[in-house]
Amino acid sequence: MIAEIDVAGANLTALNRMLASEPKVTSVSRAGDCIPGFTPNTILTSGAPMAWPQYHGGQRAALIGGALYEGLATSEEEAAEKFASRDIVIGACHDYGCVGSVAGIYTASMPVFVVSNTTYGNVGYCNLYEGKTSRRLNYGLYDEGVKERLDRLRDSVAPVLKRAIENAGGIALKPIVRRALNMGDELHSRNTAASYIFTDQLMPHFLDLPDVPTAQLKQVLALLTEDNYFFLRLSMAAAKVTADAARNIPGSTIVTAMAMNCRHFAIRVSGLGDTWFVGPEPTVEAKFFEGYSKEDIAWMGGESVITETIGLGGFAQAASFPLQDYQGGSPERMIEINLDMYKITQGENSDYRIPYFSFRGTPTGIDFRKVLSTGITPVVDAGIGGKSGGQIGAGLIRVPIECFQQAQFAFEAKYG
Amino acid sequence: MIAEIDVAGANLTALNRMLASEPKVTSVSRAGDCIPGFTPNTILTSGAPMAWPQYHGGQRAALIGGALYEGLATSEEEAAEKFASRDIVIGACHDYGCVGSVAGIYTASMPVFVVSNTTYGNVGYCNLYEGKTSRRLNYGLYDEGVKERLDRLRDSVAPVLKRAIENAGGIALKPIVRRALNMGDELHSRNTAASYIFTDQLMPHFLDLPDVPTAQLKQVLALLTEDNYFFLRLSMAAAKVTADAARNIPGSTIVTAMAMNCRHFAIRVSGLGDTWFVGPEPTVEAKFFEGYSKEDIAWMGGESVITETIGLGGFAQAASFPLQDYQGGSPERMIEINLDMYKITQGENSDYRIPYFSFRGTPTGIDFRKVLSTGITPVVDAGIGGKSGGQIGAGLIRVPIECFQQAQFAFEAKYG
Repeated sequence: MIAEIDVAGANLTALNRMLASEPKVTSVSRAGDCIPGFTPNTILTSGAPMAWPQYHGGQRAALIGGALYEGLATSEEEAAEKFASRDIVIGACHDYGCVGSVAGIYTASMPVFVVSNTTYGNVGYCNLYEGKTSRRLNYGLYDEGVKERLDRLRDSVAPVLKRAIENAGGIALKPIVRRALNMGDELHSRNTAASYIFTDQLMPHFLDLPDVPTAQLKQVLALLTEDNYFFLRLSMAAAKVTADAARNIPGSTIVTAMAMNCRHFAIRVSGLGDTWFVGPEPTVEAKFFEGYSKEDIAWMGGESVITETIGLGGFAQAASFPLQDYQGGSPERMIEINLDMYKITQGENSDYRIPYFSFRGTPTGIDFRKVLSTGITPVVDAGIGGKSGGQIGAGLIRVPIECFQQAQFAFEAKYG
Repeated sequence: MIAEIDVAGANLTALNRMLASEPKVTSVSRAGDCIPGFTPNTILTSGAPMAWPQYHGGQRAALIGGALYEGLATSEEEAAEKFASRDIVIGACHDYGCVGSVAGIYTASMPVFVVSNTTYGNVGYCNLYEGKTSRRLNYGLYDEGVKERLDRLRDSVAPVLKRAIENAGGIALKPIVRRALNMGDELHSRNTAASYIFTDQLMPHFLDLPDVPTAQLKQVLALLTEDNYFFLRLSMAAAKVTADAARNIPGSTIVTAMAMNCRHFAIRVSGLGDTWFVGPEPTVEAKFFEGYSKEDIAWMGGESVITETIGLGGFAQAASFPLQDYQGGSPERMIEINLDMYKITQGENSDYRIPYFSFRGTPTGIDFRKVLSTGITPVVDAGIGGKSGGQIGAGLIRVPIECFQQAQFAFEAKYG
């Protein structure tokens, strides 16, 4: 059998489909209205899906917070009962074309960016950044302040963004990502430039909304650039539709998704459909906010690692030396780590390039066989959540080798 | 005598005054109204001042264009006669607190940014970027299109900027420069991030001008970020008030200004007042636009080198690897050149830092003695003008050693 499978050809196809993808944000819409299969009692969360009792800590708290926010339950106890009885359905973000930041909670009434891959027609979604606070639903916290900020996103921010984006005829995201890589972003843990460029492209369209109160426009503007994290959700959605274009290519050993829940890291592989290959929690080298240490880490999910899946984030660290300030490390180490990623990828990105490497394309298309043959696992730039909820730091995490070993077993079983 | 002069102490004072400077743009105003001594028949131009017959090529054409634009003459011949008879007064930008981009033409009716050094109270000015075209007055060209764009700056852009900046209570420039160095700018030949950040800070104030037609606001917005060169004029004015704070410190060998006219490079030194020490044209390593070569270069002045004078531009190249695309070179060469600049400077900048150098401060405060003892001359990132007018490329230029030799002679003569 093995001789009949053209792995090299399949992988080239997978890479080329990633490279030819053209992500474009076309609208902002209500999750329940635009995401196929999203029922009023659905809540999406990050990582390979698990049964309700498996969720613990911040991810469990975030799911309960989502149920309360959506009005599907009026107490934590009731929410837990309804999850257990499946009156509230837990879905995996990736199965709905979504990607979750940290715990990644999507409820039906939440606004989402709608991002199309204009080359292949596939569509992805990402919900909106909650703003400059360590108290966020996606970090497992829910209280009146969190609710207020979510309400503001839905009622004030989303309608303005929707109109501006639609009036602009959509905004192509690849050119923004490409430019941001020249401006210190790696589009996972640093999205400063991309947030400014995106805002700048929307500005003329904000001016075309004279019926929107100035105070509301200012609120939207503030969210877009106050701490320059806003664009991450668009970077994630762009990466999702890019990676999805490389799914389901028979014989391909290219990784098409990586994701965490509160217990496991997991990956998907193009030639192996939508099966998740699961490993333990990742290892971590982090810089902690004042007062926190490694002992305080709590995993609560995370799918922003979709950016690494298509050659951004940790795979573009050498484009983002200022990131050392946020997540530790040194320029030398960032360069070394970035160069290592070329050893486990299928090729170099034709659009996303690193100025320090004389505009060499970023390493793109993780080949699980190369991970196994080199022992080098993908590096991920990531925010770190704490046991008491909220963000406590940022740093590098490594995808566990076990995910790739599991994929290898399955690949052999399927293809011989 | 020499033993009595505390050169080291004087240089430390000069550096510390540069570092403590806090440039802030406070308004936009008419040059003739806000610049002391600026009469209606004054035209400022770049570099050490010369008698009218000395000006040639693009700089002469730019001066004549300025006279026509201001209505001081109705033909090129009349303008030339009036310059010769001093009915039109040629001033050196630096003597009026200004800095000129390329030929650097200022006429009385032109709008200028007003930039205060809030630490020391000194004020500087810079006129506005003409926009995305190679046909610009400051590159020695004048025609109906140039006139229209200058009119638009004066009548449409400047009034909006003035109100927005004043309503903002002024905009502090040092924080913008500092952040832009983390985003691929070196604030001379690359001002992309700074232009976005500045625009973002003005945006809420644009929204507060409901009486301004939307089309006019959009015109201003477009100019601010269409090709991301807009901020250079603010970077220049910020550098000017920063360098000026270090002027006239007895015994100091720190360079406080560098400037070109169409014949000479020239520098000023803190302990030697406002005397220009003149050398020949600079040497150049450039990348030319399609169809141009070294033979097409025409020097027509330039004072944006004030940015290098305070530790930006060529002195911050390693913050700006994407610049290789615009002006040639390689990351390795940029790093090497940047490191060389530490050998000729008094110290390291306390605010302006280079991520690739693990946030080491940029080399700041050129000491002419170190230039002479090392033979390393300051490197400048610069746009290159062509014989037929307009910009024909960009690259590295080197300040000629003769300027520093002349300063040395004068320093010995004055201080023994």
